[in-house]
Amino acid sequence: MKPTPVLEIFGPTIQGEGMVIGRKTMFVRTGGCDYRCSWCDSAFTWDGSQKAVAMSAEAIYEKLKEAGGRSFNHVTISGGNPAMHPGLGELVALLQEQGIETAIETQGSIWNDWVKEIDEVTVSPKPPSSLMKTDWSRLDYYMEELRPRKEKEVSLKVVVFDESDLNYAMEVHERYPAVTMYLQVGNDDTVTPQVEKLRDHLLAKYEWLTEKVLQEERLNGVRVLPQLHTLLWGNKQGV
Amino acid sequence: MKPTPVLEIFGPTIQGEGMVIGRKTMFVRTGGCDYRCSWCDSAFTWDGSQKAVAMSAEAIYEKLKEAGGRSFNHVTISGGNPAMHPGLGELVALLQEQGIETAIETQGSIWNDWVKEIDEVTVSPKPPSSLMKTDWSRLDYYMEELRPRKEKEVSLKVVVFDESDLNYAMEVHERYPAVTMYLQVGNDDTVTPQVEKLRDHLLAKYEWLTEKVLQEERLNGVRVLPQLHTLLWGNKQGV
Repeated sequence: MKPTPVLEIFGPTIQGEGMVIGRKTMFVRTGGCDYRCSWCDSAFTWDGSQKAVAMSAEAIYEKLKEAGGRSFNHVTISGGNPAMHPGLGELVALLQEQGIETAIETQGSIWNDWVKEIDEVTVSPKPPSSLMKTDWSRLDYYMEELRPRKEKEVSLKVVVFDESDLNYAMEVHERYPAVTMYLQVGNDDTVTPQVEKLRDHLLAKYEWLTEKVLQEERLNGVRVLPQLHTLLWGNKQGV
Repeated sequence: MKPTPVLEIFGPTIQGEGMVIGRKTMFVRTGGCDYRCSWCDSAFTWDGSQKAVAMSAEAIYEKLKEAGGRSFNHVTISGGNPAMHPGLGELVALLQEQGIETAIETQGSIWNDWVKEIDEVTVSPKPPSSLMKTDWSRLDYYMEELRPRKEKEVSLKVVVFDESDLNYAMEVHERYPAVTMYLQVGNDDTVTPQVEKLRDHLLAKYEWLTEKVLQEERLNGVRVLPQLHTLLWGNKQGV
């Protein structure tokens, strides 16, 4: 029973991005990350600015019920890199026993067997603008482990800020052509409190990314999405 | 070889709503509808303001290639009610031969066997604000026909303008609990040319709908989405 460092438990809210976009969900955000992405929108999970609390699976579940009451049947585990924490396997099992579905987002750098039990896995390798370097053999291992899954879904998601990120996304898409690929507009202003201004700015960037994808036949099968929670609530934490 | 009345063929663009949201796709919009929804955002398909052209499946496919070149592998068939037109079965078969996936949106009032061949079927019954009346036995038949499908997906989508639409959506969700349900913000201003103003207005409505869903435990499993194309391009036709 290994405790997991937790930074936030909140919801119900909607999942604002990726394969489960729009779904009513609770969030568990873990602390700690093996990456330091230059544009990370949850840097407080690893930069020491906020303190994580070590929690057991039972304690996390109690907190979820306290926050969400009976108004949820889906929990998203995010980070940081939640796949770092072996103790989350117990949480996933506990939620499954209660008929609650789970989703996770991870960069695909650290494998834990419990990731296989998650209903919707988003593997989100980081493009050049993050200043991180993809370990392709680790990512290959990840995608291979997640391949033969009954009634479980997996997708790839790449955040795109510029042309070189887009080229990286094409490389990822062509390496794993059978996996549904999501491209997401990067948020390059994670501090402004001005929601309307950020909204117009991000939709202009979304339009740019959409146009790029529409013209590129190597990206025929992909999906391009904005972050809905950022359009709604800007950079506010805990929504 | 029955010709189909076609009003628009355009793309590549993104699918702005529902189960395939964000996907790069071409659109074929057919003329004619058995409904007259009060808030229809494509009323030109049935109100006589624009003239449809009768086209064979081959002619539609040629036009798709002319518009999209090699930059697409997905076609969305919309209307009007496209399920009215038996000739579209040939188009779907032709596209499948070319490895092109298909999606459709229909209210589920008129069955045609070719609907079964579509990769992603969105059944979108209309709530009270439309002033249309749902024929539940026809909708039951539709959902039953679409039930046992290998590698084909089906979803329900209800556009919500007000509380009574939300109650209708709950009724639909509880009648077909196994089918993924999408709730979509209704666009109550389909004429304004002011994109930024419409955007803020629709996101405020999206926030309202989201809050309602978050509080309602009968809607735990649903997804709530805006129309991305309207946020980007407002009420412009052909995008």
